[in-house]
Amino acid sequence: MSWVIEETGFDRENVELNGNKFLQGNGYMGYRGTLEEFSREQLAACILGGIYDKVGDAWREPISAPNGLFTRLTCDGEPLSVLSGDVEEHTQSLDIRSAIHRRRTVFDAPSGNSVLVQAERFVALDDVHLLALKYSFRPSKDCRIVIETGIDGDVWDLNGPHLENLEAEPEGDLITLNATTHELGLVVSVAEALDKDFGAAQEIVATSKSIIRKITVEARANVEYTLHKYVSIFSGADAVPDPSASTIASAAAAAAHGFDGLLVEHRALWDARWQVSDVQVRGDEEAQLALRYSIYHLLIIAPTHSDKVSIPARGLSAQAYKGAIFWDTEIFMLPFFLYTNPSIARNLIRYRINTLDGARRKAAEYGFRGAYYAWESQETGDDACTHFAFNDVFTGRPMRTYFRDKQVHISADVVYALWQYYRQTGDESVLVDGGAEVILECARFFFSYSYFKKEKNRYEILDVTGPDEYHERINNNIYTSMMVRNTLEIALETVDLLEAKYPDAYADLISRLSYDDDLKNIREMNELLYVPAPDPATRVIEQFDRYHTLEDPTVEELKTRIIDPNEYLGGGNGIASNTKIIKQADTVLMLNLFRDRYSPEVKKANWDYYEPRTDHGSSLSACVYALVACDMGDPEWGYKFFLKTATIDLTGEAKQTVGGIYIGGTHPAANGGAWMVAVLGFGGAYYDGEAIAIRPQLPASWEGLAFTVTVEGQVFKVSMDRATVSVHASEANTQGYVFKIASFTGECKPGQDVVAAYA
Amino acid sequence: MSWVIEETGFDRENVELNGNKFLQGNGYMGYRGTLEEFSREQLAACILGGIYDKVGDAWREPISAPNGLFTRLTCDGEPLSVLSGDVEEHTQSLDIRSAIHRRRTVFDAPSGNSVLVQAERFVALDDVHLLALKYSFRPSKDCRIVIETGIDGDVWDLNGPHLENLEAEPEGDLITLNATTHELGLVVSVAEALDKDFGAAQEIVATSKSIIRKITVEARANVEYTLHKYVSIFSGADAVPDPSASTIASAAAAAAHGFDGLLVEHRALWDARWQVSDVQVRGDEEAQLALRYSIYHLLIIAPTHSDKVSIPARGLSAQAYKGAIFWDTEIFMLPFFLYTNPSIARNLIRYRINTLDGARRKAAEYGFRGAYYAWESQETGDDACTHFAFNDVFTGRPMRTYFRDKQVHISADVVYALWQYYRQTGDESVLVDGGAEVILECARFFFSYSYFKKEKNRYEILDVTGPDEYHERINNNIYTSMMVRNTLEIALETVDLLEAKYPDAYADLISRLSYDDDLKNIREMNELLYVPAPDPATRVIEQFDRYHTLEDPTVEELKTRIIDPNEYLGGGNGIASNTKIIKQADTVLMLNLFRDRYSPEVKKANWDYYEPRTDHGSSLSACVYALVACDMGDPEWGYKFFLKTATIDLTGEAKQTVGGIYIGGTHPAANGGAWMVAVLGFGGAYYDGEAIAIRPQLPASWEGLAFTVTVEGQVFKVSMDRATVSVHASEANTQGYVFKIASFTGECKPGQDVVAAYA
Repeated sequence: MSWVIEETGFDRENVELNGNKFLQGNGYMGYRGTLEEFSREQLAACILGGIYDKVGDAWREPISAPNGLFTRLTCDGEPLSVLSGDVEEHTQSLDIRSAIHRRRTVFDAPSGNSVLVQAERFVALDDVHLLALKYSFRPSKDCRIVIETGIDGDVWDLNGPHLENLEAEPEGDLITLNATTHELGLVVSVAEALDKDFGAAQEIVATSKSIIRKITVEARANVEYTLHKYVSIFSGADAVPDPSASTIASAAAAAAHGFDGLLVEHRALWDARWQVSDVQVRGDEEAQLALRYSIYHLLIIAPTHSDKVSIPARGLSAQAYKGAIFWDTEIFMLPFFLYTNPSIARNLIRYRINTLDGARRKAAEYGFRGAYYAWESQETGDDACTHFAFNDVFTGRPMRTYFRDKQVHISADVVYALWQYYRQTGDESVLVDGGAEVILECARFFFSYSYFKKEKNRYEILDVTGPDEYHERINNNIYTSMMVRNTLEIALETVDLLEAKYPDAYADLISRLSYDDDLKNIREMNELLYVPAPDPATRVIEQFDRYHTLEDPTVEELKTRIIDPNEYLGGGNGIASNTKIIKQADTVLMLNLFRDRYSPEVKKANWDYYEPRTDHGSSLSACVYALVACDMGDPEWGYKFFLKTATIDLTGEAKQTVGGIYIGGTHPAANGGAWMVAVLGFGGAYYDGEAIAIRPQLPASWEGLAFTVTVEGQVFKVSMDRATVSVHASEANTQGYVFKIASFTGECKPGQDVVAAYA
Repeated sequence: MSWVIEETGFDRENVELNGNKFLQGNGYMGYRGTLEEFSREQLAACILGGIYDKVGDAWREPISAPNGLFTRLTCDGEPLSVLSGDVEEHTQSLDIRSAIHRRRTVFDAPSGNSVLVQAERFVALDDVHLLALKYSFRPSKDCRIVIETGIDGDVWDLNGPHLENLEAEPEGDLITLNATTHELGLVVSVAEALDKDFGAAQEIVATSKSIIRKITVEARANVEYTLHKYVSIFSGADAVPDPSASTIASAAAAAAHGFDGLLVEHRALWDARWQVSDVQVRGDEEAQLALRYSIYHLLIIAPTHSDKVSIPARGLSAQAYKGAIFWDTEIFMLPFFLYTNPSIARNLIRYRINTLDGARRKAAEYGFRGAYYAWESQETGDDACTHFAFNDVFTGRPMRTYFRDKQVHISADVVYALWQYYRQTGDESVLVDGGAEVILECARFFFSYSYFKKEKNRYEILDVTGPDEYHERINNNIYTSMMVRNTLEIALETVDLLEAKYPDAYADLISRLSYDDDLKNIREMNELLYVPAPDPATRVIEQFDRYHTLEDPTVEELKTRIIDPNEYLGGGNGIASNTKIIKQADTVLMLNLFRDRYSPEVKKANWDYYEPRTDHGSSLSACVYALVACDMGDPEWGYKFFLKTATIDLTGEAKQTVGGIYIGGTHPAANGGAWMVAVLGFGGAYYDGEAIAIRPQLPASWEGLAFTVTVEGQVFKVSMDRATVSVHASEANTQGYVFKIASFTGECKPGQDVVAAYA
């Protein structure tokens, strides 16, 4: 039963959260976990990746496609809806094994009638434009059922409506709704085909916002009536000449293929996906389900179809955070894909390569050279983030925040991720084909951004905001500076690699970028960049200049100062801003990313120092403390953070608004964090560039753990119990790899098994 | 009548403001313009300069001495007080010619009696420890008058009470009150002697806070009874071995000398002071009075007795702004003293020399070398300013402000003033005796503070707040950077001067400060410091990096956004912070201080650009716009700013609280500004280091203007009408000076007159 999320009974209070909890998707679109009869008010939405729109001065955000699965019944003139309360039984469930959403509801209908409604739907994983729904009903008494089903254009968004020029019309047996986006005039096209196992009169009603079939059935007692809907969505952002024609063809083909046939293909692809993605936990059912659920969420939003899109901070669950891509993707989600599905990782990396010009524009906007990646990146790489990200809850005024202009670490995060990808896949093509240019432009940006302190003969990185966003505009932030140094090192390594292996490409790049002087600059800066070191006495690294002069209350003490539950703790007048309380792992995240460079004592000293001072006000925080706890050999300390991370979208306990701004939706970075803690933390898997180390740190309740590791295209199944690690190399592998497990070091060749004791 | 400020009738609403308006003082103490019967509730206070105290966590501030002039009457058992409302007639006045405060009140007393009370008091200008009061009463009917007079320890302060261990006791005929300050345990000693022209029974009543004589008089109708009080104050901050003994001796000697004798000496000294200080305006009575009133306020707070104190931002009128010395003194007040009374200017300069170690401690606190002068300087030069200067009116929380840590221009202001003093007085001793050390340490601080931008091969001054405090933590502020460059230039000039003229002192200084390397640093920094230049097209100088990207509302538009009249417009969430609206002259102040370096076109372009964007939220703003308007040849534009500046303490229209913090009191910087506009602006006096230029820019209503100019100890009387300037060199002068008046250039030798037409 570790594959099904289910909720019994209907609670109106949960409608919004269930939209996230029961989300389906395929990287092209996210379909919220709403019921078939729901509309805008219940936050029904089908959010498309990579197509954005801006209305007036409101924030630019992804669009919601018209909802082609909309369906509701009327029984003897009375609408059946969970919202009206006449519900005898109700169950909503999500089978994460195959990404199938089901609902089963028994409605009280007029004249003592009971109507059972069952629905099953999926967002096709193979054909990303397609949704399919099987919908059946069975009354307990004879009655007249009117089915209203079609395409509902009245969908939820935050800053819309984004679609205009709606044209709803039948197209043969199909119905279609075409519209254009407000800002760019991109076409969005939805077509629906329907088949049903019963004869009935049909009328098509088109309004300004929707096109609905009204099907009237004189239904017989205890007879089940079933219909199938096939919905296809294309837009002007897709590489097709005529989106409208494509939707029609696609929906018609799907209908011809039939629901069951489509489902078989969908299931098969999901099986294959789980083959490499699943992590099995023995002895801890709660962890097992939460972990699989986290992986499910990563899989439904991963772009398999395009390298022009990446994964937004709230996935495809909502317009929150403008549907933008943050560093979350590179630092918190990429590792999962790298280890399990490198081709998706490649798409994520190539998205950044494809948006390099946006990063160049942002650098130029602030007077710098090189590439300054967007804090909130949409389809062009231009920054969607404003200088006023929240509202002051006390005055209602926009609050100046520095996410956009001061989180320079984003460029370093992109380079870090790109290099991780290259190291783990060995894919040099991504370097030659744009990746090296990204790296050099980011390094150039940091030189351009840096200042030199003559008095101390060192470069410094000033006026930044690090991961801990409660402290804005700080100097020499350990996370940022270390990441900048890493960027410089990678730039120099890249130059060496290209020069040696691709001399023509190298010469072309250096010349095209006029990079000769910058190469000298970067070499010098790499020598002389100041990165705060651990205090010799305490081993604590000061998170930024003068952090140690700040007030030092406990988190609890700080929280007693909160006046409005909705107030932002950072920003100009935030209650955390002038204290040592940090929003999320910062120094400790750096220790995770550069685990080879610091001693266990330094890790422990900083964990001990910063964790009690961390508010965990970001969903990106807990997993990092868990990872470093494992690295320190304290998995039990990590376990509670792991559970918090892995269950975030199950419990729905995360904040829904901050400073008056909606930030709800799913939390893919936490989902990725849960995977990292399980596999890299508890499982102790670590690829150091040459060998694969497995250093298990299982929590006390875990009897065993199994997962996949992919390095340079070689796939290994790793499983462990509390004493032994077993590795099986895929028969399809083409080369062996050295594994290090406790005192064992040995190669695991294609098709071979390696077993080693570790405890 | 241009010498008397008078208010007729009593209005309880004006009590607080009148305390400022009718202020008396002598640089040692400020005695608020309260009536004799007033106490703490009416903000009675005698504020001492240079002696500060801190109670608990409250702000450190100057102390109020016990009020030795306290006096009130009871007539047939009924207290006579303006506060009780039984007032037939009432007049309060201040003769600014001789700094004499008078009150005349006719009280309704029991049984149809009328009691006339008249009082006259002064704070001695010659003996700064002394106050004297003549107090008389005359009933219209026989009655019993009880006089309560003595030393009232219940005085007003903001963050006290500061005095403890109060000991009140008679000492022969005198009464004394001794106490110690809370923080440092310094003695504060007050003694009062009394004489009277009538016989009466006296009883002395000492309480925990006061010592009061009760004198009972069986008064006769229409007979005037007069008493004189002589009060002396010494403290542990004075260079006397036994403050208590000094007060007793001083009060006794004053009583022996008698009121009239003291008054003669006091008047004589005021006459002498006005001889050099007065500015005469013909044709504009309002301006004349306001200007003299401004000069009066400067004279009553100027430290004639010590170079260990300077002039606080609110003078000696209140504890507001912690009684601290700001840059106001150097930039806004010093010119008046330089031109009229250089020995006072010398005291102000030497105060900064004497507090150099405090500035060194502040630099070290922030991790810099050299001298970083305090934003709010008290007796040691340590910074009294906190990192939380206001409260957020919406939450009541302390608001982080950056006055203390980011207004680095204060060190440059000190150097600017020191150099102005040296240039105008020729007094090299002040350089040799500490001044050069101040200059070099400030230059060293700026090198230590600066960063080098390798990409642009220039030094930059980052992360500062300029005069426009609405924009905190900005980069390359024109005012700050220009002042820093000036500091470096002066440091190099100082080095050259010392090396040439005082080689031993020079060698000693460079060696003692280990300054060899810094000399190289400062030379390079002087070459390569970035100072924003006027835009070639518009001639506007961008006030700081990215100022031009800010929102650009009008001041009126911005003010419609105010929610709470008491809210601070700057700071983290301030409504001005993210707009182009500035608090006060910043770029334009720079253009005033460096008037030789910019063309009239640049001045005009920046005046036109910035004035409409200036909120004039500081009393330091209007006079600067007036000065530059005159410099541009537009005195009419300057006139309204002049009047606003000159009348600020007459109208009392300035803000009393900001962000929940009391900022009331007098405005000596504006007083100095009024003088500057009259003499340097409208009068057009300007000493360029060699010659004295007089370039009149009289406003239309002014028929004539006369003032004193002192350069290198040479005193000149300048007078002008609308066509001609006359200069008379004092007979006591020892050398001639070249004057430039329109096309005339010629020397004015001792005792000579020069007359030149200019229009």
